[in-house]
Amino acid sequence: MSDKRSPLAPARFPNLPTVEGVGLAAGACGIRYRNRSDVCLVTLAPGTTAAGVFTQSKTASAPVEWCRRALARGRARALVVNSGNANAFTGRAGTGSVERVVAATRELFDCRAQEVFVASTGVIGEPLPEEKLVAALGSLREAQAPEAWKAAAEAIMTTDTYPKGASREALIGETKVTINGIAKGSGMIAPNMATMLAFVFTDAKLPAPVLQASLKRGADRTFNAITVDGDTSTSDTLMLFATGQAQHPRISDAKAPALRGFRTALEDLLCDLAQQVVRDGEGAQKFVTITVTGAASAKAARRIGLAIANSPLVKTAIAGEDPNWGRIVMAVGKAGEKADRDRLVIAIGGMEIAREGEVVPGYDETPVAQHMKGREIDIAVDVGVGRGRATVWTCDLTHGYVDINADYRS
Amino acid sequence: MSDKRSPLAPARFPNLPTVEGVGLAAGACGIRYRNRSDVCLVTLAPGTTAAGVFTQSKTASAPVEWCRRALARGRARALVVNSGNANAFTGRAGTGSVERVVAATRELFDCRAQEVFVASTGVIGEPLPEEKLVAALGSLREAQAPEAWKAAAEAIMTTDTYPKGASREALIGETKVTINGIAKGSGMIAPNMATMLAFVFTDAKLPAPVLQASLKRGADRTFNAITVDGDTSTSDTLMLFATGQAQHPRISDAKAPALRGFRTALEDLLCDLAQQVVRDGEGAQKFVTITVTGAASAKAARRIGLAIANSPLVKTAIAGEDPNWGRIVMAVGKAGEKADRDRLVIAIGGMEIAREGEVVPGYDETPVAQHMKGREIDIAVDVGVGRGRATVWTCDLTHGYVDINADYRS
Repeated sequence: MSDKRSPLAPARFPNLPTVEGVGLAAGACGIRYRNRSDVCLVTLAPGTTAAGVFTQSKTASAPVEWCRRALARGRARALVVNSGNANAFTGRAGTGSVERVVAATRELFDCRAQEVFVASTGVIGEPLPEEKLVAALGSLREAQAPEAWKAAAEAIMTTDTYPKGASREALIGETKVTINGIAKGSGMIAPNMATMLAFVFTDAKLPAPVLQASLKRGADRTFNAITVDGDTSTSDTLMLFATGQAQHPRISDAKAPALRGFRTALEDLLCDLAQQVVRDGEGAQKFVTITVTGAASAKAARRIGLAIANSPLVKTAIAGEDPNWGRIVMAVGKAGEKADRDRLVIAIGGMEIAREGEVVPGYDETPVAQHMKGREIDIAVDVGVGRGRATVWTCDLTHGYVDINADYRS
Repeated sequence: MSDKRSPLAPARFPNLPTVEGVGLAAGACGIRYRNRSDVCLVTLAPGTTAAGVFTQSKTASAPVEWCRRALARGRARALVVNSGNANAFTGRAGTGSVERVVAATRELFDCRAQEVFVASTGVIGEPLPEEKLVAALGSLREAQAPEAWKAAAEAIMTTDTYPKGASREALIGETKVTINGIAKGSGMIAPNMATMLAFVFTDAKLPAPVLQASLKRGADRTFNAITVDGDTSTSDTLMLFATGQAQHPRISDAKAPALRGFRTALEDLLCDLAQQVVRDGEGAQKFVTITVTGAASAKAARRIGLAIANSPLVKTAIAGEDPNWGRIVMAVGKAGEKADRDRLVIAIGGMEIAREGEVVPGYDETPVAQHMKGREIDIAVDVGVGRGRATVWTCDLTHGYVDINADYRS
């Protein structure tokens, strides 16, 4: 947690309404930090369904492995999240820590082990002092409150400079449902105190397979379309819980027309949280939106967008406020996707710079350079071979990033 | 060209002997720089064979496209290289520039167009003032000298802080042959004044297909195993020319036992040049060797090595002299190749840090931290699933890199 709030941060933490069936409490159990909260317990009404997507890392953390297995049942009663220690690369001891936290929580809630989910973020390779977590569970259970969203968002922060939350409403049939989410992350994403975690809660009543399909689809165009440094945490976790307290007609298919509003609202909320993670990117001074059109497919468009977004040369040019479109051409070329050099169109800040393989006649860099001085940078690329499109979001690569990451642990 | 020589640079440019059949000359034709050479002409004896490997970029430059096509004949009489302008993303005008340089050179040498090779490095998106190049050709032809290796290496530099050259000898049968090479590059590699170019010359007498097979094999374990920032130039070019002046027995197969010594010497020379490029990496303060063993295949090992080498979090940790092995675990995990978290072994500077999914008992960071303070950093990873191995080379990510690339063009 840094003292200095990112210049790209939203003005304030939003007002999150209550979600029926969800209670939250945060506390300080001294895992690593002093004088701040580092654990959060979320209680979920009986009957809550669960969905999740997790890191693609081949060296995933013990909590991620637990959640993947527990999800098979698709039910949840409690979520325990700690910051300060990721319980990653901790071998058999790490698995034991998870088991002990789950066992204690399960007893407290008188539920199945598979109804307890856990997530950890912080340093890796150090044993998790789970006895501190376990000792805190009882009083956290007592302290449950339906409105403690900001406190929960704060308890899961590591190098984040601000807590992240979002809320949306949707109609299912004629019934209003609420979706709230909290997230943390400020690199995309380091395994060392900068993992991405996001937890979303709704009062909708949806079977686990419907929930899972909706979450996966939403994640693809939001959390899977952001990058800070191209690094993937061992602990990345995005979960969605539905308490089923809302009284709407039964939904049994993720593609049901009645679910359209919910899916849109969910994707919008995930996009909001994902962008908040980028806006807290380590050292970030500029928020960059990259839109790729004319690719062979949506997947190709996203790969090209991420190649641009992850290029250190593009990112440093943005940090230097240099409209260096040559580096964008380079990044398109290295993405490995089909592209036609002689049909490429590149625009920055809505101003066309290159078309048909060369600079546009009479190109005037002045207004483009002006756009580069702002906080919000727009890059648009048309690769000229198809109809695939995607948008990705990133930030610049600054001296601040090097400072934070060259000095982080010591 | 920077005033400040990289701290990782070799002590001096090596002594390169003459290669029979090769003449060189460098000159200043004022393409972009003042008071320095920016063009180099290499003449090759009649009968010279040629081989080349080029950028994988889908937005390759006009000179790269020309060389690829011209190589079909496998013969060469002249090579023209300029710095200051890459002739990349210059549309039809760029192709025209190449054609005019080739036509003028061909006339001078009374040879076929396909026997003339060209390469350009420098800014992209600006038309190449090829008339300046063409005007210089006559006097460069006059000035040909067999020993002007250093002058040639200097003429092709852009952001390089030192000229790069290497020489090896080998026996084919009982005949001694010489292999000389020059290279430029100081990012891996920006399209904007920091492309990687390398040209290698030998007096061996080898058919073009044998030459091509030897070069491709050698490049795989050398130039394809280095990275500075993971960015790929539109202009990367590595060519090998054999003048056939040496009097050794005829070779018609790249796998001929008589060629073993030559292939080894060639790979050794390519490795030397490739490492010189990394040692001149933009802002580099440390040279990093990453050895991966126990992977599913050699290719998997190289992918894992490059994932470590390209991770901004690993590179900044090295810059900060922080033995942050957690980031190495992260990078192994994100490479997408088979790995077993619970069998992973990680060592830095020959000292084992982690084994079987956790830190080794009684791990003492002091000697590892000491190793990190040096200029040459060794990282070894065993992923525990097979017998594939690879070595890759990279440098750290420093404030110098951000300085150079955030300010480069303006």
